[in-house]
Amino acid sequence: MTDTYKPSWVPEEENDKFACRVMYGVTGGHEGTPGVTVDKKDKVTPAIKRRKLEVDDYVEGVLKCDRAILSRAITLVESNAAAHFETAQQVIQKLLPYTGKSTRVGITGVPGAGKSTFIEALGTNLCRGGHKVAVLAVDPSSTVTKGSILGDKTRMEQLSREPNAFIRPSPSGGTLGGLTRKSRETLLLCEAAGYDTILVETVGVGQSETTVRSMVDFFLLVVLTGAGDELQGMKKGVMELADAIVVNKADGDNKQRAMVTRAEYERILQFLRQATENWTTHAYTCSAYTGAGIMELWNDVIEAFMKQGWGNGVLAERRKQQTLSWVYTMVEEHLHNLFYRSPAIIGCKEEIEREVVGGKISATMAVQDLINRFAAAELSGVNVKDSSPFEIK
Amino acid sequence: MTDTYKPSWVPEEENDKFACRVMYGVTGGHEGTPGVTVDKKDKVTPAIKRRKLEVDDYVEGVLKCDRAILSRAITLVESNAAAHFETAQQVIQKLLPYTGKSTRVGITGVPGAGKSTFIEALGTNLCRGGHKVAVLAVDPSSTVTKGSILGDKTRMEQLSREPNAFIRPSPSGGTLGGLTRKSRETLLLCEAAGYDTILVETVGVGQSETTVRSMVDFFLLVVLTGAGDELQGMKKGVMELADAIVVNKADGDNKQRAMVTRAEYERILQFLRQATENWTTHAYTCSAYTGAGIMELWNDVIEAFMKQGWGNGVLAERRKQQTLSWVYTMVEEHLHNLFYRSPAIIGCKEEIEREVVGGKISATMAVQDLINRFAAAELSGVNVKDSSPFEIK
Repeated sequence: MTDTYKPSWVPEEENDKFACRVMYGVTGGHEGTPGVTVDKKDKVTPAIKRRKLEVDDYVEGVLKCDRAILSRAITLVESNAAAHFETAQQVIQKLLPYTGKSTRVGITGVPGAGKSTFIEALGTNLCRGGHKVAVLAVDPSSTVTKGSILGDKTRMEQLSREPNAFIRPSPSGGTLGGLTRKSRETLLLCEAAGYDTILVETVGVGQSETTVRSMVDFFLLVVLTGAGDELQGMKKGVMELADAIVVNKADGDNKQRAMVTRAEYERILQFLRQATENWTTHAYTCSAYTGAGIMELWNDVIEAFMKQGWGNGVLAERRKQQTLSWVYTMVEEHLHNLFYRSPAIIGCKEEIEREVVGGKISATMAVQDLINRFAAAELSGVNVKDSSPFEIK
Repeated sequence: MTDTYKPSWVPEEENDKFACRVMYGVTGGHEGTPGVTVDKKDKVTPAIKRRKLEVDDYVEGVLKCDRAILSRAITLVESNAAAHFETAQQVIQKLLPYTGKSTRVGITGVPGAGKSTFIEALGTNLCRGGHKVAVLAVDPSSTVTKGSILGDKTRMEQLSREPNAFIRPSPSGGTLGGLTRKSRETLLLCEAAGYDTILVETVGVGQSETTVRSMVDFFLLVVLTGAGDELQGMKKGVMELADAIVVNKADGDNKQRAMVTRAEYERILQFLRQATENWTTHAYTCSAYTGAGIMELWNDVIEAFMKQGWGNGVLAERRKQQTLSWVYTMVEEHLHNLFYRSPAIIGCKEEIEREVVGGKISATMAVQDLINRFAAAELSGVNVKDSSPFEIK
């Protein structure tokens, strides 16, 4: 049994003038989210939380969709510790046959475009329609500033109460390469746990939308009314990545403007390259607030896209290319680290830099010198972890 | 003696309704540009053109500012042939002590902003004021499309007749890395030949302005009136690279609009990071057509910038960082090629790709496998040319 904690005086409930609502914390086990039935009480005792899990425990737990174990598996994947990295890779290796069966949707837009409310409305509808929905976030800002543009996922109050929803905030810390690995492997874990719909949220700034585009099947751009102003704030090229554009907040007084904005985007889209072969990107309107247009977008656009893409081989080819390009991105990072962490380079780097800066040798000659020293050094004794781009310690 | 070749009938000279003028070819030696006095007639006979030059011939010729030999030295630097690469590096090595003394100015702007006419007006003024001016172009479009956005340098009719001007079009062919090396080394050759002002022109699209920013002291953005429209066409971030913005074509009816546009840019600049420490980027107006504002920009802005930058150490530090970052960009390209051209990788790449695409191994494991094989292979026998990013053949 789980009890909702409620303080004795809650000013927000005194009258309806408060824009925000209060979410009460819960007492009891960590699965004590209201609406979630806990089958066995002993399953949520603190003891099991602390038990060290072996590879097979993770694999079994994820396949059973034990949310506690799935969370711990993701934490393992997100860890920078060398031992965790080993275990995580073994877990993923064993789960690989169970992955790849979901609909992977990326959702981007400038801050304030209403991505979270859109995802909440879509996710809740899908869950109630029998889908299992995982929501992930990729937010490189949390890497740099340690703050997050996407904000706290607990804002998705309603969705977080759905038993078929799983919400995971962006992993933080580390390089973009590390962030990408963590997000892609988390996506695989969710698929193995049986989530048939993965929604990956990202901000429409920096490199993150390219990262997310490279791990999803369908890419959705959420925008607001006033295309001109917003497009200026949006990074060039984001529209060309999108398989659909949806103008959010098409409700009340804003509905007419949303229709106009939709038409403007349609016009611009005519001049852009298509993001996916044999698929024409269109603009739509929706209201995450009233729910209008949300499921139409899902059924008539995203599901239609998936059906067509699996039918004509475009999706199979896309996923193949995504995997290979990810492999070679990681390879490049490894090479970078192999070089900079090589004793042969560390030993001479400063002197060569001094010479080239002092005009004693040309830049091209400095490069040849560095590469010759690197090539002459014995690499065979090098532990591949030493060049890992994932900051494994 | 050089004669100007003039055909018997020139329609463009019949009346003044033609917008273009005819540039006549010259007869005689290849130094027969009108206005250039040829000291020794035998210096320009075809024989010397065909004579094979040794390293010391190049060095001596460049230091004497023999324009024919300077041109040949640049052609050598631009060559992709292995033998030429060797010689070119030796030439540069010997010329290094004579480099670094010029004012290096990068000039960018969207196509049609009037970069060429601006450079013609500035260059001609500088030459007549006793400067020696070299104009280079960096145009990656010539690499991809084999056509050139920057167009033919012979459009700079007036400047090309100045004895103290040297105009060189963009090298074509090869990767961006190759293009960068060629442009940077051409710049060094021009400095060794005594050119005290190097103007590097580039288009304001793609990656070329970052490339040019990384090889110059001062970066100038040439724009037209109508800031809003133009900014949309301009790549985001270009304004943040600029040490000055100049609104061109501020003449006649357009003068008032140019003043307004200047003010608009000033307002936007307030919100941007400064491109150079202790230097505030401002917007100016000029007319390449009437010459108004051109020399004021040079004297009061660019020269003031150089004086301040050498005084407070900012320029010395900038050049140091530019050299180092160039070295490490080349290193990364070498590493990339070392890997992809390694027999150990070529031999297993296809199978590993098949396994990872088929879901037999995880992407992270595929990467570890590839890197382990690369590290285990003997690199010491590898010729550094094999991994050269410069397509040396």
